[in-house]
Amino acid sequence: MALIVQKFGGTSVGDHERIQAVAEHVARTCRDGHDVVVVVSAMGKSTDDLLALADKVSTEHPAREMDMLLTAGERISMALVAMAISGQGVEAASFTGSQAGIITDTDHTRAKILEIHPGRLRAALDEGKVPVVAGFQGMSTEKDVTTLGRGGSDVTAVALAAALGADVCEIYTDVTGVFSADPRVVPKARRLNRVSFDEMMEMAATGGRVLMLRSVEFARRHGVPLQVRSSFTWEPGTWIVEEDPTMEEAVVSAITDDISEAKLTLDGVPDRPGVAATLFRQLAVRGVNVDMIVQNTGTNGLTAISFTVPKTDVDAAREICDAVAVEIGATNVTTDTGVGRVSLVGAGMKSSPGVTALMFETLYEHGINIEMISTSSIRISCVVRAEKVGEAVRALHTAFGLDAA
Amino acid sequence: MALIVQKFGGTSVGDHERIQAVAEHVARTCRDGHDVVVVVSAMGKSTDDLLALADKVSTEHPAREMDMLLTAGERISMALVAMAISGQGVEAASFTGSQAGIITDTDHTRAKILEIHPGRLRAALDEGKVPVVAGFQGMSTEKDVTTLGRGGSDVTAVALAAALGADVCEIYTDVTGVFSADPRVVPKARRLNRVSFDEMMEMAATGGRVLMLRSVEFARRHGVPLQVRSSFTWEPGTWIVEEDPTMEEAVVSAITDDISEAKLTLDGVPDRPGVAATLFRQLAVRGVNVDMIVQNTGTNGLTAISFTVPKTDVDAAREICDAVAVEIGATNVTTDTGVGRVSLVGAGMKSSPGVTALMFETLYEHGINIEMISTSSIRISCVVRAEKVGEAVRALHTAFGLDAA
Repeated sequence: MALIVQKFGGTSVGDHERIQAVAEHVARTCRDGHDVVVVVSAMGKSTDDLLALADKVSTEHPAREMDMLLTAGERISMALVAMAISGQGVEAASFTGSQAGIITDTDHTRAKILEIHPGRLRAALDEGKVPVVAGFQGMSTEKDVTTLGRGGSDVTAVALAAALGADVCEIYTDVTGVFSADPRVVPKARRLNRVSFDEMMEMAATGGRVLMLRSVEFARRHGVPLQVRSSFTWEPGTWIVEEDPTMEEAVVSAITDDISEAKLTLDGVPDRPGVAATLFRQLAVRGVNVDMIVQNTGTNGLTAISFTVPKTDVDAAREICDAVAVEIGATNVTTDTGVGRVSLVGAGMKSSPGVTALMFETLYEHGINIEMISTSSIRISCVVRAEKVGEAVRALHTAFGLDAA
Repeated sequence: MALIVQKFGGTSVGDHERIQAVAEHVARTCRDGHDVVVVVSAMGKSTDDLLALADKVSTEHPAREMDMLLTAGERISMALVAMAISGQGVEAASFTGSQAGIITDTDHTRAKILEIHPGRLRAALDEGKVPVVAGFQGMSTEKDVTTLGRGGSDVTAVALAAALGADVCEIYTDVTGVFSADPRVVPKARRLNRVSFDEMMEMAATGGRVLMLRSVEFARRHGVPLQVRSSFTWEPGTWIVEEDPTMEEAVVSAITDDISEAKLTLDGVPDRPGVAATLFRQLAVRGVNVDMIVQNTGTNGLTAISFTVPKTDVDAAREICDAVAVEIGATNVTTDTGVGRVSLVGAGMKSSPGVTALMFETLYEHGINIEMISTSSIRISCVVRAEKVGEAVRALHTAFGLDAA
């Protein structure tokens, strides 16, 4: 008998039939002798509907009120899921983030969980009930309703699993697991049975769309085994676990792609200490999310600094670059929104020196120019033209032997 | 400068344009120098939509989960109204029933307010903000989310007005006030400028659809002046206040009608003590809401007992009557769903003995047979055939001089 946290995303509870399917699955898990805590997102597109209403009502959207509005979505889905589980003959009780004891900071619309007091959930479990908890939400230290930002429901699930000492946190979604590449880009992509937390974090950070970096980090820090599964097929999905040193590792586990970022370049930058610090401090102050950074060794005492940011941050970043360029005497600022990134991720890469070479050769053979390179011990990322990303991912998937038989 | 509680019903916040109109009105009241606390219902038909979803998802509807589900409705409207008020340049902050300190018993779907701790609302007012409070909901002594049942948002508004010592509680709805009769039945019905709590309670109890009995009782008990107004025209509505002994009272203020009830009759009932007690105790135990009761003096030691119940309670009432009839030896039970009730309400009736006679004469002249009669000091109700109710109301409206010029 295990304690299992089962998290169901928006598509998994998208309509009444999906909710009934979820309830059947939860009831079956209970009948198999396990204790279950359910975490739910808002139904399908309901969050979008609420956002559209807010836009119609006012141009002023105080963050505190947006959180109050959006948390109505999970309130609906959690009550419906609890009813549907009751309809399966298993007692269930729904809990808001506040009732589940999820205490956050006061940073509305992107709050961080500070602590969890799961007393009411434990009491419900002790009474033989299935607690159904609203994902994505909590209560701030000021006793206001908060939301946890993008991917927040996964964070709720992982954090509850950690707080309750659950044996596993199952993330149910609309795909059957984590793949060796995005199946829409690479038809021959394979589902992975098992990836390490480190690999999953690199994948999440470089375009993997199944899990947000934040929840994987949280799971690794607290040692919560994750399983990503489909609520449509219920087949076993992908385990995300601590790396097991006794096992042989795949050199490359997955190829990820990402065309959501833009590249900015400052040319003719005086190559002296403190220049990069000035730039990136100001970007940080403005809340611009910088991802890759590349600085070449300069000639003639001049260098170039390139970095990527989410396309939504391009205007803010450009403004700062223009100002900093004047301040430090850079000659030129360019913005490029036509870039994409392709990344190799694999825990076995650490001990396989030929990976970088094969990656570059493969891209060269396909006539794909590399504009920026950045590496970690288990990842290599290349920035290329956005329109070449699909071809690059497919070519690398084949070259590294990942294609399904 | 006054403290005003403004309550807006479902049609008043039915869409984004209505919400903006409400926000403008609230902002104008603030600019006139008043402090405002807003109470809102769920938007238009949103509660019906949620109920339909619950039916689709499961046949099991635990009351606790229904409350969790339905309270999502006000959460949406209150956040939107707060945003819209902010859009008018007036700071606003929304509060759930729990955050507003509304503590109820644990009787889910029809909880009663036990106490109110309006500390957060006072703090918001002190900071110059407009608190926007979810109507219809509270938090139970078990820290679960509860709803207050039908007319619950009005109760919230009145209770908050009492707890905050507000100068007036304004109830905004889709009619312009309280009328001398239902304008759909009597085209010549007039809006009343002023009715007493007692009159309003009798009207609410006999088919007046503007306010529920419960909120009027609450307002009278706590001395909260009520004003019923339209959020569509914003014209001055009807004041509901303590009777003022110095003023001349209208003999009859309003004629109400109600065809929502059915009549049950037990014939051949042995006329001995305890018989009525047996019957009405069992009806009470089953939660059947008995309204009018008439028992005739019997002949031959036998009597007849008739009473009315909401049509929704007819089956339960019939079952009990059949069982009790056997127990007490009554000869016959009949159910009649074709009845209606017409009532005269007026505080001046107490000192005008001719009212009853004029009522009966008027009905007689129109060939309308009276099946049951019940009176209070300021009300006379007659049960007649349902299809005669409209004609009866119009005739009485004319006979008592209520028709608009």
